[in-house]
Amino acid sequence: MGEAAPLAEEAARLAEEARELQDAAAALLSKTWKEEQALRQRALALESDLKRLRSSFDAASKKNHAGLDPKTADKIDEELYRARCLISDGDVASLLASKDHGWFLKMFLGPVNVRATRKEVQLKVKEEYNGYRDRTAFLFLLFPCTLLLLRSYIWDGCFPALPVQLYQAWLLFLYTSLALRENVLRVNGSDIRPWWIFHHYCAMLMALVSLTWEIKRQPDCANKQKGVQLFLVWAMMQGVAMLLQNRYQRQRLYTRIALGKAKRMDVVWGETAGVEGQLWLLCPILFILQGFEAYVGILLLRTALVGVIHEWQVIVCGALLVLMAVGNFANTVQILMAKSRFKAKMRRTKSKHDFDPNASPPDSSPTYLRS
Amino acid sequence: MGEAAPLAEEAARLAEEARELQDAAAALLSKTWKEEQALRQRALALESDLKRLRSSFDAASKKNHAGLDPKTADKIDEELYRARCLISDGDVASLLASKDHGWFLKMFLGPVNVRATRKEVQLKVKEEYNGYRDRTAFLFLLFPCTLLLLRSYIWDGCFPALPVQLYQAWLLFLYTSLALRENVLRVNGSDIRPWWIFHHYCAMLMALVSLTWEIKRQPDCANKQKGVQLFLVWAMMQGVAMLLQNRYQRQRLYTRIALGKAKRMDVVWGETAGVEGQLWLLCPILFILQGFEAYVGILLLRTALVGVIHEWQVIVCGALLVLMAVGNFANTVQILMAKSRFKAKMRRTKSKHDFDPNASPPDSSPTYLRS
Repeated sequence: MGEAAPLAEEAARLAEEARELQDAAAALLSKTWKEEQALRQRALALESDLKRLRSSFDAASKKNHAGLDPKTADKIDEELYRARCLISDGDVASLLASKDHGWFLKMFLGPVNVRATRKEVQLKVKEEYNGYRDRTAFLFLLFPCTLLLLRSYIWDGCFPALPVQLYQAWLLFLYTSLALRENVLRVNGSDIRPWWIFHHYCAMLMALVSLTWEIKRQPDCANKQKGVQLFLVWAMMQGVAMLLQNRYQRQRLYTRIALGKAKRMDVVWGETAGVEGQLWLLCPILFILQGFEAYVGILLLRTALVGVIHEWQVIVCGALLVLMAVGNFANTVQILMAKSRFKAKMRRTKSKHDFDPNASPPDSSPTYLRS
Repeated sequence: MGEAAPLAEEAARLAEEARELQDAAAALLSKTWKEEQALRQRALALESDLKRLRSSFDAASKKNHAGLDPKTADKIDEELYRARCLISDGDVASLLASKDHGWFLKMFLGPVNVRATRKEVQLKVKEEYNGYRDRTAFLFLLFPCTLLLLRSYIWDGCFPALPVQLYQAWLLFLYTSLALRENVLRVNGSDIRPWWIFHHYCAMLMALVSLTWEIKRQPDCANKQKGVQLFLVWAMMQGVAMLLQNRYQRQRLYTRIALGKAKRMDVVWGETAGVEGQLWLLCPILFILQGFEAYVGILLLRTALVGVIHEWQVIVCGALLVLMAVGNFANTVQILMAKSRFKAKMRRTKSKHDFDPNASPPDSSPTYLRS
């Protein structure tokens, strides 16, 4: 009994404290919610005002170039762009209803919110994604290299099934996690091009299909495994391109952040997006890769249609490769064109008044490139 | 020029408004952060006080039953339990550092926060998970049924590869998404047993391995496909058990919520967890299922070791099935034992003083069952 009294007292005290704390937390949450709600109303109103003004400004500058003197027009353009950036990327952004999460995240995760409120967290997610891409690119180069070398020097020209299938399973995991992470980045305000995410869905599907594809053995495995071999060579080249790109992308992003031009959550992934600085090295590699991707795809389709192998997997993989090659090519060309348009605009601006390093790029092109 | 002036004015006004809004939002965020931080400190202090008191209470009640009169002991137990519930499940919980996200979520999503701050959202996630389980259980029953029926009546006793592989790919997706969702629920405060999540990792691995497993064709496919057939029969039984369980789980959860006994984020998944009410129907089905699971596993292992098929997939799938069967059995037995301990305690309590419907169950058992 001697022990019970102080224990009971302290338990009662702690229970009381827990109730008080609960009340304080509930009050804080509801107060914060109300204040946020008020700001949210203002932000929504401002957003629609901006949209309205942007469209009348665009209409005015289209209708009559002479009516708006270029300096005023540039200033208006600049101010609208900056205001939009503040709303969509500043602290206000975290108050606005998060972007729709998209079917992919819903399918895997359900209706959970992955939008970070605090900017630091958003940037940490982005940083980690960049680091993940780097590590990935390294493995992307290492795995197919190892497989091809082992085939030549140890496996006597013939892949065993298990290592290839482990590699394919890794690809499936990799593309799934990349697609999930990019969807998360998109929800957190990144302007990633939809094509690159779609590209990863295709790659996921291909990895899945390739897992069901039987790795043919002796005799004559060199011929039967031609498809696997070509695919690995392509994957190796992909690894090199990814390493170059990652290095360039990160430089470009930091420069853009330093110039205050870019929204910090911008991320540009894919075979083409980072094309400047090492542009003259990167561009040919990208186009060669895309050509080779299409070539492997067509080779697979021909194999299936002419009739050596009748597996449906061959047709699906071939078609997916061709689709991805065409899409990648179209996106690369679009980005290069947007870049040259921006350069032309900069030249025009420069010739009309003094060069302004803060001139804003056209904000309709989400992945405009640093000039 | 006539158009430019009002446009420029309004652009300047909107830009100013955006800046003001940004400042207000930044101020609100930092103020809220500070207030939350203060509450967080208090919550952490209270949490460690509670832990300390709980252990001295446990020590006291173990050392000397006579020293604590049962009524006081029950009251202390009750108050400590309630205080802990408030902290770990009330509005305070959303302020505390979220639980570690675990390697699985990190691997797929990176370091993104999936903990919901608002209770309504947490419950929405939970509701959606229950709905997802229902839809899933239905498909879990439908797919293998369809495959088995088609095999008998249309495919002439021999599975074609594609439909079986589609089913296996669906299983892989399903288990991945279930594992992700359960990890999300865990982060949001659900007391799901770790085994059920681990069980889904095993099932993911098995679905992946089964995808690489060649579906043998004629001649003599009936014999070669014995493993697939057994697996499908097992999956069908699994579907029935899941439907029964889901129905029961939901009833149980709502009753517990109504009684105010359970933390609302509790979720109990698995072949065994929901065992009351329909207990006498469910328990035999669960044990039969587990036995059958082990039987299929051992059959596969024997096939591989005696030497009809030499594929590594057979060994891995067999071993995984046996592992899952043993784990499921152990967990079912543990839960049944916890339940009977709780019943015994209730009987004891009832005989000592008046029956108290709010007597708290032992909080060391996270998936205690409704008495």
